Amino acid sequence: MKFVLKNVKNGYRAGVISELGNQPDKTVDTPFCMLYTRGGSAPHLSRDVLNRLKNLPLVAHMPLNILADHHEAVRKFQHGIGKFAAMEDRVVYCSLHDPSTLVKSGYNDKHGVSVWGKGGKLKLDTELFMKIQESFQPDIYQALSDGDTDINSTRKRCIKVVDRTLSFLDSILDIHNKSERLKKTAIFGSIVGGYNEAERVRCVKETVSRPVQGFVIEGFFNPGPDTEHFQINECVNLLQKIIEILPVDKPRLMQSIWPPDAVIQAYELGIDIFDSSYPYVVTERSSALVFTYIIPTEETEGEELPETYEINLTDKKYFADFSPLLKDCKCYTCENYTRSYVNHLLNTKELLASILLMIHNFHHYFEFFESLRRSISDGKLEDLKKLINKPKKLPSVER
Amino acid sequence: MKFVLKNVKNGYRAGVISELGNQPDKTVDTPFCMLYTRGGSAPHLSRDVLNRLKNLPLVAHMPLNILADHHEAVRKFQHGIGKFAAMEDRVVYCSLHDPSTLVKSGYNDKHGVSVWGKGGKLKLDTELFMKIQESFQPDIYQALSDGDTDINSTRKRCIKVVDRTLSFLDSILDIHNKSERLKKTAIFGSIVGGYNEAERVRCVKETVSRPVQGFVIEGFFNPGPDTEHFQINECVNLLQKIIEILPVDKPRLMQSIWPPDAVIQAYELGIDIFDSSYPYVVTERSSALVFTYIIPTEETEGEELPETYEINLTDKKYFADFSPLLKDCKCYTCENYTRSYVNHLLNTKELLASILLMIHNFHHYFEFFESLRRSISDGKLEDLKKLINKPKKLPSVER
Repeated sequence: MKFVLKNVKNGYRAGVISELGNQPDKTVDTPFCMLYTRGGSAPHLSRDVLNRLKNLPLVAHMPLNILADHHEAVRKFQHGIGKFAAMEDRVVYCSLHDPSTLVKSGYNDKHGVSVWGKGGKLKLDTELFMKIQESFQPDIYQALSDGDTDINSTRKRCIKVVDRTLSFLDSILDIHNKSERLKKTAIFGSIVGGYNEAERVRCVKETVSRPVQGFVIEGFFNPGPDTEHFQINECVNLLQKIIEILPVDKPRLMQSIWPPDAVIQAYELGIDIFDSSYPYVVTERSSALVFTYIIPTEETEGEELPETYEINLTDKKYFADFSPLLKDCKCYTCENYTRSYVNHLLNTKELLASILLMIHNFHHYFEFFESLRRSISDGKLEDLKKLINKPKKLPSVER
Repeated sequence: MKFVLKNVKNGYRAGVISELGNQPDKTVDTPFCMLYTRGGSAPHLSRDVLNRLKNLPLVAHMPLNILADHHEAVRKFQHGIGKFAAMEDRVVYCSLHDPSTLVKSGYNDKHGVSVWGKGGKLKLDTELFMKIQESFQPDIYQALSDGDTDINSTRKRCIKVVDRTLSFLDSILDIHNKSERLKKTAIFGSIVGGYNEAERVRCVKETVSRPVQGFVIEGFFNPGPDTEHFQINECVNLLQKIIEILPVDKPRLMQSIWPPDAVIQAYELGIDIFDSSYPYVVTERSSALVFTYIIPTEETEGEELPETYEINLTDKKYFADFSPLLKDCKCYTCENYTRSYVNHLLNTKELLASILLMIHNFHHYFEFFESLRRSISDGKLEDLKKLINKPKKLPSVER
């Protein structure tokens, strides 16, 4: 894997990742979001529906916890998790946790880390973890880490997670470097240490000194439904400090940075890679993303901005609303279905509602990232921020 | 609507329906199954996925009970239920009940009939029923009827349902004939009367004397999950009697004839139109249809027939089975995914499992009907019956 920074005006950070494992001829521009998957597939979407989305991310994000139960089958299959999940045309990034599933606190120790799949808790020591990676053969994976800290973690706890994570990394590198099956695979080291600056700095310095190709920053909160309430402001100084001492020539990934204002804030601090579990979470609460990411031209200047990032289609005000989910949206759902019909599907609990919302929300989020990249290269990030930062609240819903 | 019988060898019945409401240029060959929909859409499938299925039925079957709650919105929409549900390229048949949803007994009276949607019970008198039909503007609809009888119904009850159904029909025809919005729409009269021969005969004679374009035979059992256990043998003599006195030049429809052996048996008795809720029901229990409908050639003669009509993909024996759901199946699912992967999706409760199974099961059922029509025109129905009648039992499942 190779990462090259581009020359961008105004000091914005943008780069190109290339020479990616099984897709050596393809490149990805940063900043980008990965394609969120559950069990190896984009939620609710078959591959052919997915492939008709514009700006579909090249990198498929496969959280290990939902896939781990099936690793024996993938091992027997022999061709890796990408092909197993009919995603062989994507680059596979394997994270440890799913950003939208609750990770319970207190289940890690020096022998390993617990992840939660549909079958319950699975304790991963480095040996099992690497056995799974050898079965999955991803293009990139996050090293096993203990990210179980939040703003209330003690100094002792912060020292412990750094000790463990570094020790896991050494064991992993040991196995990885001897593995024939993983020789095209890159490792991203995990930067942990809670809110303790000294431990964060130690973790960065030690991780940087090891042969990893990128970094995952975690340990500010536990993933799960509360992710959305996390404010980067809580850790902005520490995050700045961490990124300052990370090498500029390797990409940095941060999961669970969800709404568009948080994405831009994290990007400005120096994050390159994001996940797209947010459109999934929005879909699951029957909502459609409607925030604006199109920088107004002279013609459209002055048009009203939406008051919320999303609208909830169960609201009875959409009962006889025959407009698309979002005016002028070019997604399959908006071109074929009305708010009224989606409201009807939700009322009758038809699965198609989730499918149609997922298509729209993925489309919208991927377009937002495309707009973000364009605004960076055009020197218009400030204009995009003005659009994005306006609406904040969740919609109130009348049923 | 026009129905013309074809000249077929061996006395088999086959026909062509043409001049259908909003699709006057299209024709449909009988026997056929309609495309089952819930809330107006094929379960779990967006229109573009659906449109890539081979032998997709032209006629979309829209049970009124799941749609009725939304009729006010459809009325305001003004363009009918087909367009509202993004199904404007289909012919819409609107039935009273959904074949896979339980219809509770004892909720009809002389003023009207109860249907069950997601919002609970809705009592339909002829006025409300016709208001809904005028909003929906289907191409064909089933007349309001009281089909609430089974093998245990008394003679008194059988007389009552015939009285009511005929009285509903007269009121409906009255409104229908004055309606501008329904002038291209056909009515199918309902043949009811339980297991009472005299009442069935009376119902047929009275219905035939009224201007209906086809017939729906019902009232042998209440629709719902138990439909599958219904044996045509229980009513075969009566059904024969009914069909004998129905005019040959109008199509006969019967819902809830599910497995392929029942379809062939009902076809031989004289039924032309079936529904396809069976592949949906099979999908909902995590199964894939695997019965054989391909009449063996000299080459394939002697190949083993499957022991069951379906296999259940939650069975742990598919954990590391990397074959398609069904060998040589040309559906999207079988060409792209393995049993092992579908097993994994089911274990992790991912919706994509339902989508993939629905695609396969629809494909399989529609191909079966195509094979049925071909075997009729080729004079090979007996060969098809031999294949179909072999496997009977449901698979036993180990988890």
